[in-house]
Amino acid sequence: MRAAVLGTGAWGTTFATVLADAGCDVALWGRSAAVCEEIATTHRNEAYLPGIDLPATMTASTDPATVLAGADLVAIAIPSQSVRATLAPMRPLVPAHAVAVSLMKGVELSTDQRMSQVVAEVLGLPVDRVAVVSGPNLAREIAERQPTATVVASTSPETAQLVARACASATFRPYTNDDVVGVELCGAVKNIIAVAVGIAQGRGLRYNTMATIITRGLVEITRLGLALGADAETFPGLAGMGDLMATCASPASRNHSLGVHLGQGMTLDEAIAATGGTAEGVKTSRSVLELARSVGVEMPITEAVVAVLHEGLPVDELAPLLLGRPHKAERT
Amino acid sequence: MRAAVLGTGAWGTTFATVLADAGCDVALWGRSAAVCEEIATTHRNEAYLPGIDLPATMTASTDPATVLAGADLVAIAIPSQSVRATLAPMRPLVPAHAVAVSLMKGVELSTDQRMSQVVAEVLGLPVDRVAVVSGPNLAREIAERQPTATVVASTSPETAQLVARACASATFRPYTNDDVVGVELCGAVKNIIAVAVGIAQGRGLRYNTMATIITRGLVEITRLGLALGADAETFPGLAGMGDLMATCASPASRNHSLGVHLGQGMTLDEAIAATGGTAEGVKTSRSVLELARSVGVEMPITEAVVAVLHEGLPVDELAPLLLGRPHKAERT
Repeated sequence: MRAAVLGTGAWGTTFATVLADAGCDVALWGRSAAVCEEIATTHRNEAYLPGIDLPATMTASTDPATVLAGADLVAIAIPSQSVRATLAPMRPLVPAHAVAVSLMKGVELSTDQRMSQVVAEVLGLPVDRVAVVSGPNLAREIAERQPTATVVASTSPETAQLVARACASATFRPYTNDDVVGVELCGAVKNIIAVAVGIAQGRGLRYNTMATIITRGLVEITRLGLALGADAETFPGLAGMGDLMATCASPASRNHSLGVHLGQGMTLDEAIAATGGTAEGVKTSRSVLELARSVGVEMPITEAVVAVLHEGLPVDELAPLLLGRPHKAERT
Repeated sequence: MRAAVLGTGAWGTTFATVLADAGCDVALWGRSAAVCEEIATTHRNEAYLPGIDLPATMTASTDPATVLAGADLVAIAIPSQSVRATLAPMRPLVPAHAVAVSLMKGVELSTDQRMSQVVAEVLGLPVDRVAVVSGPNLAREIAERQPTATVVASTSPETAQLVARACASATFRPYTNDDVVGVELCGAVKNIIAVAVGIAQGRGLRYNTMATIITRGLVEITRLGLALGADAETFPGLAGMGDLMATCASPASRNHSLGVHLGQGMTLDEAIAATGGTAEGVKTSRSVLELARSVGVEMPITEAVVAVLHEGLPVDELAPLLLGRPHKAERT
């Protein structure tokens, strides 16, 4: 199978590696000529995956026509808020039979659309030819070929199966799922919860607090998902709880690091600069809160994170907001 | 309210502190005269909670009659497999009106009973005067007065409320729950899952693997719980997912540390010696597996941990056992 991967960040490069390991012919597209040249000639991407040897068969180019020619599968890993503008001019280059795979975890600001919706709309694909891949998938660990499980979701079981077969290898194990809404919401909201956990840890709070925020965070993700038609079983699964936990526990997560910087007293601009790369939670927090309000769902942690990130709430007031209510039954 | 706490380990001493902070009159019982003396006179328990100042009002004694006299609440935090033998001689000393609180996380080896069942039986109490306290509750963090949420479960809402009121403070927030079976199983099985996570980490596997084992671990805890009549909603809550996550993420968890030592190549005896204190998962893994088999429930992670701990399975064979099945739908 011929696969095009759009995006030469850590996750795009890693997923390209997964596809190549699984036997696909892989071409990477990126904006940066230097990065594409480095991948094509030295089989390295030192900026994002230092020290990792990439498969020698993988090609890379800044020319979308070259990369997309003959692709059976087009995987996309670019910052959520740039997807629409980046993909629009590529639409005529995507082969008619191709399936698209969204690797993004975010919600578009202006439209509140999930990434698979943006991809389908911009590329003019029916939703049953779009899949999303999401799970406890820290790129660096996968690039090191540590064994990892993931979820491949599509409204079409055939599309999910096709993508699962394309990426399955001895160290990368895909499970299929038909709940695209649930899987994508989990991926988007976990970045916001990771910011909250980071802030608490930046204030010196440790594992009890982390576990409490994650647990209550999954409750609010589930509440939003159910209101939007997701399947309840997705949330305690790999794309829900699994991804949330990996993101919140790993010091390598950008959203988590951003939170830690904020918790230690940096301003948002300083924290963004110190984190490097795109912390999706910053912008997605607003889209998710809008989405939640539009369907009448309460998301207290997301609300607190938006208040800290965008409304000047001092970080010291976050923890009491999350933990300070009077004692009551767990589920009321 | 007058409270007796049995057990001067980290959790017993910490819960005694929680009760004292919440306004109870607290007396601690322990086997060691030296530790009781230290708590009573210097208000420290340096072996288990180094550097923590304990409430000056708290008393401690090796004499159960002194400690239990007039107690309205008796909280118990002793190693699971010693509960029966330790409590039996104390039965006549427990005031007739008292409620008992189990702080233990384990299953008795010879009987496969949960700790609240052992406590009720040995003290001759009706189950509705027994509660269990469980959640993401690493003792050290609570002793430092980091804000923490917990679950107080009892078949009697009045007993749960009474215990919740007795321990609620500005930094310790109890939620009540009536699902004693679910809450106790979560507490017992999480120690086994923590051993599995530790082994994987000892082999050099990082957060993706950790999150995957925890996620699949919660699936098997839930499966066992439902077969034994627990409430499905307990498992994604604080006593389920919350406690599991805190235990698996913290380097302070003994079960997790034991696993790391095993993963790095120690024998079980060496790992137990290096860990110090009681790693409940070692013995509980066998009881839980028996319990699961008796109700026909599959628990692949628990089975793998038992195989490593008690049947000589090399740790290198654990990860493939957990992650090596062919790709399929997430929930089948």
